[in-house]
Amino acid sequence: MFEFFIVKNRKPLLSVMCELLGMSANVPTDICFSFCGLLERGGRTGPHKDGWGITFYEGKGCRSFKDPLPSCDSEIARLVRSYPIKSRAVISHIRQANRGKVSLENTHPFIREMWGRHWTYAHNGQLSNYKSLLKPEIYQPVGNTDSELAFCWLMDQVRQKYPTKPKNMQTVFRFIAKQAETLRGLGVFNMLLSDGVYLMAYCTSKLHWITRRAPFGKATLIDTDWVIDFQEETTPDDIVSVIATEPLTGDETWQKMGTGEFLLFKQGELIFNSAKA
Amino acid sequence: MFEFFIVKNRKPLLSVMCELLGMSANVPTDICFSFCGLLERGGRTGPHKDGWGITFYEGKGCRSFKDPLPSCDSEIARLVRSYPIKSRAVISHIRQANRGKVSLENTHPFIREMWGRHWTYAHNGQLSNYKSLLKPEIYQPVGNTDSELAFCWLMDQVRQKYPTKPKNMQTVFRFIAKQAETLRGLGVFNMLLSDGVYLMAYCTSKLHWITRRAPFGKATLIDTDWVIDFQEETTPDDIVSVIATEPLTGDETWQKMGTGEFLLFKQGELIFNSAKA
Repeated sequence: MFEFFIVKNRKPLLSVMCELLGMSANVPTDICFSFCGLLERGGRTGPHKDGWGITFYEGKGCRSFKDPLPSCDSEIARLVRSYPIKSRAVISHIRQANRGKVSLENTHPFIREMWGRHWTYAHNGQLSNYKSLLKPEIYQPVGNTDSELAFCWLMDQVRQKYPTKPKNMQTVFRFIAKQAETLRGLGVFNMLLSDGVYLMAYCTSKLHWITRRAPFGKATLIDTDWVIDFQEETTPDDIVSVIATEPLTGDETWQKMGTGEFLLFKQGELIFNSAKA
Repeated sequence: MFEFFIVKNRKPLLSVMCELLGMSANVPTDICFSFCGLLERGGRTGPHKDGWGITFYEGKGCRSFKDPLPSCDSEIARLVRSYPIKSRAVISHIRQANRGKVSLENTHPFIREMWGRHWTYAHNGQLSNYKSLLKPEIYQPVGNTDSELAFCWLMDQVRQKYPTKPKNMQTVFRFIAKQAETLRGLGVFNMLLSDGVYLMAYCTSKLHWITRRAPFGKATLIDTDWVIDFQEETTPDDIVSVIATEPLTGDETWQKMGTGEFLLFKQGELIFNSAKA
């Protein structure tokens, strides 16, 4: 399935900020169009000029494309944009540096292996007074961002709690959400996390999500008149959820996440919502 | 500096096999030309049709491009080939599957974080009767190759021996070489390993290396009449070492590694040679 596939009347994007973008789908789905919009905002129409990255899962494997260059100037971004990789789980991030210099090692998403799975993470926000609290041992940050340190700390907490992979993965993500509350106490912590099967969203200040399923219709990107028709090339069984800092379309109903809210998606479906638990 | 930059009279490559390719340099250097040759051999002129991968370090960060498709058919390979990323440490691999299915998660190089550094590894060879011996705990394979399992086991051995990063990194690589002897007892184990600063080569059956420095001259790729001129765009201080399964050029003196031999490169220079220790 294509996430978006009809593009008409392209106009310059306005300054809608969109730092985090995640997708969960029950069939391999490309995220090219959303990602294209995101890239435009990276230094051209938006303030997020300090690098970008995207990770696609394909089975248990994943591939990442990253660049510390503004996405609008990135040769690699152009390459990714022209090559529709289909995936059931995607995490993407455009960076406006606050903590940590602009460099490849500070570019999201960050990845670590746990229990024989690649875990992918991206963070929007800024933490303060965290260095005395966040002292991971098993996982160590390579760069010097608060984001990567928080990721390593989260993974460390999980490894300490669960030395081996438990059967019930929902309990793991609920445990992570509980740890994320500690991070929320240190500042703004909007976060996407995936092991390739599950996609977790944790919100402090700003995250929106939508689940698309049959009957599919058309949609229009915010701040542009790009028209998207989801009906073509989809099947009635396709389910795709998209999570983004700001809604990407204006004529669909996006859900706004609340402070401290945590969502868990699998195969495109929302399977846990802390606000309704 | 460009590793190679004058290409003349391109002819089809013959079937020289080249599975592993590594580079260590004291200035950011592109490996495009060698990599292009490698890619041609991936399914077109050589038997290595089961995926390819390359990891470039840029500072402490690294970026990988991988594809389970034959490299000669890979859209991503074409993208990498046209985009000269400059790096001081590179590891590349073209795969002919023996153990483990053809998939993204089984595609080399494999990467794990240790002591706040990304460690990159690629293996050529095949191991037997290894499952009872190789049971890593901290690092777990994501795919099902003997290669990734051996990497996780090596990293586990290092973590157990050195819970924190020792000051003398040479001792770490010597310890890894000692562990590699155990792997060599299980089959063929030709291996490249890097933390972005050091590049280690361990040989069981087939690895060759060369260090290029001023005065630079011309060289001709084996099985083709591609002519390379290293003198242009280099400075007298540039030092680049290349390690490959088979020599890439015919009119330079490549060193053949012996069974159980281990080399350590840093900033383009060979800094340890077990055969001369």
